[in-house]
Amino acid sequence: MDINPTIEKFIEKARVARLATADIKSSKPHLVPVVFVFDGSRFYIPIDKKKKTIKSEKLKRVVNINENPNVALLIDEYDEDWTKLAFVMIQGKASVVYHQLQRGGEEKAQLYDAHEKLIIKYPQYQTTGLDEMCIVIEPVKVTSWENSQS
Amino acid sequence: MDINPTIEKFIEKARVARLATADIKSSKPHLVPVVFVFDGSRFYIPIDKKKKTIKSEKLKRVVNINENPNVALLIDEYDEDWTKLAFVMIQGKASVVYHQLQRGGEEKAQLYDAHEKLIIKYPQYQTTGLDEMCIVIEPVKVTSWENSQS
Repeated sequence: MDINPTIEKFIEKARVARLATADIKSSKPHLVPVVFVFDGSRFYIPIDKKKKTIKSEKLKRVVNINENPNVALLIDEYDEDWTKLAFVMIQGKASVVYHQLQRGGEEKAQLYDAHEKLIIKYPQYQTTGLDEMCIVIEPVKVTSWENSQS
Repeated sequence: MDINPTIEKFIEKARVARLATADIKSSKPHLVPVVFVFDGSRFYIPIDKKKKTIKSEKLKRVVNINENPNVALLIDEYDEDWTKLAFVMIQGKASVVYHQLQRGGEEKAQLYDAHEKLIIKYPQYQTTGLDEMCIVIEPVKVTSWENSQS
């Protein structure tokens, strides 16, 4: 789906987003802050294996996505001047991908590009390294809100 | 449930949180930034009717909570120094309450206190006013994470 240029700029500027997933059994939401890049059509969220005390595959966000691809990603910045408040919520379908398991072709190239973008956007990864596991979100619905509009 | 004092301090300091709800049919998460107060046992999130173009009752977060009380509330602050990253996720049961419909007693007094706390924490409400509708979250599980721990 197409995202309008003003919203895209707002997305590009953001350093952090919040990712909501939900299990299918009880529709119980789970919520974490994430870093991300957007390539104009999809969002890529790395999973940093090294920092976790449990295996990436067992992380609740990964378990939830594997059973229920519906996710929401929120981009906003708080300001004490409430006329400046704005947010963009992206609802979409997520999947968990492993760089090394991609067979090549367009998808592998996109993942490689996303990996590069992540390292450029977040120089922190030059120290910590970036793992092979990544959440990819295909936007289905984009909701934007600005306080000044209302 | 009891929340430990370090986590409570982290919660008290935060000016903004993110609230995830989900519909029951498709387990589709919905996510918005919110302001809140915490009275030591529950979270109170006001709904600002005046700023909305649709009726409060029709807001997706309200519709979701009315059909599925499971919510997640995230409190975190982004920092470019990733060793300083930390978050607290509160999973709990939410309900939508109306001040004027409370019959009195303890619950009405708690809501009144929350209302007072909101106006003190957010002086912005002295201009905009504070509406009667409020989301109340009873915590069920609190997850906290600090990057420096790992």
